[in-house]
Amino acid sequence: MREIQAAELPDIATGAALLGTGGGGDPYLGRLLVRREYLRGRTVSLLDVGELPDDALVIPAAGMGAPTVRVEKLPNGDEASTAFRMLERHLGRRADATMPVECGGSNSMVPLLVGAQLGLPVVDADGMGRAFPELQMQTFGVYGISGSPLAFSGSHGERGVLDTGTDNVRLERLARGVTVRLGGTVSIAQFAMSAADVRRTAIPGTLSLALRIGRCLRESRERYRDPFAALTELFKETAYAYATPVFSGRIVDVERRTTGGFARGTATIESFVDNSVLELAFQNEHLVARVDGRIRVIVPDLITVLNAETAEPITTEALRYGLRVTVFAIAAPPIMRTPEALAVFGPRAFGIDADFTGVEELA
Amino acid sequence: MREIQAAELPDIATGAALLGTGGGGDPYLGRLLVRREYLRGRTVSLLDVGELPDDALVIPAAGMGAPTVRVEKLPNGDEASTAFRMLERHLGRRADATMPVECGGSNSMVPLLVGAQLGLPVVDADGMGRAFPELQMQTFGVYGISGSPLAFSGSHGERGVLDTGTDNVRLERLARGVTVRLGGTVSIAQFAMSAADVRRTAIPGTLSLALRIGRCLRESRERYRDPFAALTELFKETAYAYATPVFSGRIVDVERRTTGGFARGTATIESFVDNSVLELAFQNEHLVARVDGRIRVIVPDLITVLNAETAEPITTEALRYGLRVTVFAIAAPPIMRTPEALAVFGPRAFGIDADFTGVEELA
Repeated sequence: MREIQAAELPDIATGAALLGTGGGGDPYLGRLLVRREYLRGRTVSLLDVGELPDDALVIPAAGMGAPTVRVEKLPNGDEASTAFRMLERHLGRRADATMPVECGGSNSMVPLLVGAQLGLPVVDADGMGRAFPELQMQTFGVYGISGSPLAFSGSHGERGVLDTGTDNVRLERLARGVTVRLGGTVSIAQFAMSAADVRRTAIPGTLSLALRIGRCLRESRERYRDPFAALTELFKETAYAYATPVFSGRIVDVERRTTGGFARGTATIESFVDNSVLELAFQNEHLVARVDGRIRVIVPDLITVLNAETAEPITTEALRYGLRVTVFAIAAPPIMRTPEALAVFGPRAFGIDADFTGVEELA
Repeated sequence: MREIQAAELPDIATGAALLGTGGGGDPYLGRLLVRREYLRGRTVSLLDVGELPDDALVIPAAGMGAPTVRVEKLPNGDEASTAFRMLERHLGRRADATMPVECGGSNSMVPLLVGAQLGLPVVDADGMGRAFPELQMQTFGVYGISGSPLAFSGSHGERGVLDTGTDNVRLERLARGVTVRLGGTVSIAQFAMSAADVRRTAIPGTLSLALRIGRCLRESRERYRDPFAALTELFKETAYAYATPVFSGRIVDVERRTTGGFARGTATIESFVDNSVLELAFQNEHLVARVDGRIRVIVPDLITVLNAETAEPITTEALRYGLRVTVFAIAAPPIMRTPEALAVFGPRAFGIDADFTGVEELA
């Protein structure tokens, strides 16, 4: 267990934005909320999943809603802790720790906020190893943990508990309906589980990975080193193993719409060096990158869009005409590439008529 | 306390349909579900509100959704008890009795079903004295009882608890969103309160009133008596006091739509005796009846549409071209005509730009 330093928060936010694969919401606002807790003298500690006894209770915390709404509708700052306490009350038991549902995007910050406010450590692991648009798209659920009961809290004091038994897809639909009705964004606590189940079903080390990514990009910039080469090296030492730039060019078209509680759309990028074109499709997160019509990277492998010079991550809502970008791909860890996992968050789960092939094979 | 006889269920259903003022859903299906419990050897008892000690816990039970959906989407029969148990669990306390939220329409049957299934008596009172389309339109809320927490249960095992503090209008919006997402109809338990609060805020005797109305109509038919005159006599002995036929004629036009979880529309009726026309506007329930453009009856006074010969109540979804009907008006009890009550379910709460005037004054 080690305390997260306030000075590390910007690096975690940068790394989480990269792991957000374009979605998950900008962590900037969440980082400010955590920083406010630090200014009040509160801190938060990061815990290795092995440091908890088997029967310790862990409750992941997150935000739910379209990122395009989450950057515009300001939270009060206590919604996440309200949802967390609501689930504890419903379960009749206090939690020993919290953790991210999703290490990518703004959901990296929500457990840090809850941890600081409630004095709980944060487990260094998550259920996505990136960001995904829907609740059921998590390794917890893939490996048998129910998302029910789910506690939610809105920004006008609305709160509640939802339960759909073992059906996590039905839970997603119900919770999405509540989210839309409460203005497009809510805080949630769900997937309450034992530390033993966290060890079995979570992707370990993803919050500290976000910190390392952010530090790597900052130090590359400070030392005038190639950030893309540094990232490739960094991922070699992780469960992700393979990471590579796949395309560099200029954005020439962006089409987007916010429907059914999601930010959906496509972006088109023209190569700097030849006539080739990369087309990117997203549903909150980037789902598939096709170069001249052929799939080059596909979900659940991570597709990130980075500033071509600084390697700063660019979220889908910030994509715009004229931006010079590098599309950088990262292989998903093995736990996210099993047949069970691909059934829940592989290409066909997003309506894409293609089988999954790893980015290292498509190269 | 007295046991409701299986043979009385049809009369209660008829009376509830009349008190439903065109809405609340047809009680027929609910009556069959209660009858099934009786065939299994279960019974249910009706309790005067004075028979419970002050601190006894009463939890009202109801269904929520557009009547047009509720008559088509068949329930499993255990949703209401599931929601009831969920609220008990959330409160950490078992209820001593249940009661109707709404004595009009199908919601008259829901507490009988819960009472039979869970072995609880049913308090002979409700919060509407009729039917209303929205959750906050109840005397409980008018006189200070919060609708939160509300427990709900859907027909595919979905369930949950919603809480918006003291804001019952916000609760309506949130619960309506859940209802729409779960297919247009759910069972709910809410307004948990002490027997002392029931005595202070509820309209007493409304379930037994439904039984008396149903019996009155049946006996009038059997004995070839004028059912309308019999109804007028019956209501004289109740808190409603005034009831009268206001118009008889043939339906010449019906316009309806199901939007936002409600059945909305208008019906036009041409007089049998002269050229006058009655226009009826409804949102689940009949809201206002205008004769030749002048208001003749307006919410919260009760506007019922009855078969012109038999006085059988006709629900809004059964209104159709050519039907011969009598519009029968009933004054709302004094507890529903206070300024606080009219602020919640008076004409302006339905977007009607008119002050309330009692039907006995408009005559």
